Amino acid sequence: MRIFDTVGMPNPLRVRIALAEKGLAERVEFVQVDLAAAEHKQPAFLAMNPEGTVPVLELSDGTYISEVAAIVEYFDGLDGNRTLTGESPKERAVIHMMHKRAEREVLYAMGNYFHYGTPGGSPTLETYKAPHWAGRKEWGALERERGINGMRYFDSVLRKQPYVAGELFSLADISLIGGLMFAKISNAEIPAELESLTAWHMRMLERPSVKHPA
Amino acid sequence: MRIFDTVGMPNPLRVRIALAEKGLAERVEFVQVDLAAAEHKQPAFLAMNPEGTVPVLELSDGTYISEVAAIVEYFDGLDGNRTLTGESPKERAVIHMMHKRAEREVLYAMGNYFHYGTPGGSPTLETYKAPHWAGRKEWGALERERGINGMRYFDSVLRKQPYVAGELFSLADISLIGGLMFAKISNAEIPAELESLTAWHMRMLERPSVKHPA
Repeated sequence: MRIFDTVGMPNPLRVRIALAEKGLAERVEFVQVDLAAAEHKQPAFLAMNPEGTVPVLELSDGTYISEVAAIVEYFDGLDGNRTLTGESPKERAVIHMMHKRAEREVLYAMGNYFHYGTPGGSPTLETYKAPHWAGRKEWGALERERGINGMRYFDSVLRKQPYVAGELFSLADISLIGGLMFAKISNAEIPAELESLTAWHMRMLERPSVKHPA
Repeated sequence: MRIFDTVGMPNPLRVRIALAEKGLAERVEFVQVDLAAAEHKQPAFLAMNPEGTVPVLELSDGTYISEVAAIVEYFDGLDGNRTLTGESPKERAVIHMMHKRAEREVLYAMGNYFHYGTPGGSPTLETYKAPHWAGRKEWGALERERGINGMRYFDSVLRKQPYVAGELFSLADISLIGGLMFAKISNAEIPAELESLTAWHMRMLERPSVKHPA
């Protein structure tokens, strides 16, 4: 299997954490995609993933899988032991819900702030992000505010339980880690009063799969 | 189990189609939420779902599940026969990927167009949608364009296979049906040249679970 990704970016990192958690790093070959040159917006890449996002997993039969949750579903199902996405219907529902909240309320919000409210990535990349839209900076600021509100929500969750989806580490934690990475590269720090979120984040950064992802 | 929803809206419809597919309609009691009065943005509702969206599933132990994919995961796992979300790791990955694309590229795009590019829902509801943001109409128009591009993508997919994720009906079809419903209430018709998407849509509208959802 091959994964098309870019070292140092939040979404590829999410998959690399999952691979380390599952002990599958050795079964995957990584192919680097040059985001700064907008390689992921060119026809050859779009033929693999029409949304033009990294990472993309290529299965041995040539099937391409994009979307982090879909890639994690794949790896988590291989060994019949769904440690990241849950076993029972209720576990699976809670994990998918909390993963989605982390993506939408923090990761996407901060990703939008990064591209629209800050200088973002390379000038070449930003030409693909509606550069002539007059409302882009204001929207970026609204998205930053939404991301900070998302952090407040997760602080309230983590005041009551050790992990984002309850008692166990899961895909939902991985997605929030990715979201906070996007916040960090945008200089949108976690507000100091969010002590439970900060404590959880420090604990996560020491977790072996996060400290040494695939 | 109870579901807090609003008859006639795309996201609640997605769950009702899934319930009809699984034959579970009778196990659920529906509670109507008044979207026009922004009931889903008030504290009592936000305590169930802080994102303020319908539908929300309440399990018998009092757990609240929001997010359509999470709710469908729950129902699909109850009978040990995952007809909507797939059995093998590859099936599950493809279905989750295509579901996500349908959500992001059509459903969310057209939902944003509805709220920001058209008069949207009730005036009360729209006060929760950044009404003073100068860029809102332009953003709505960009989102409409993105949604139409999403339709073009799914037309190309459905030229090659009978269902959104391949040979079988799945969560991915349900999400695209929801997306096209948002397009319809925004008067963003499917472009006439997208014949495969149109033919699939007409076939879906005749499917028993879509014609007679829970």
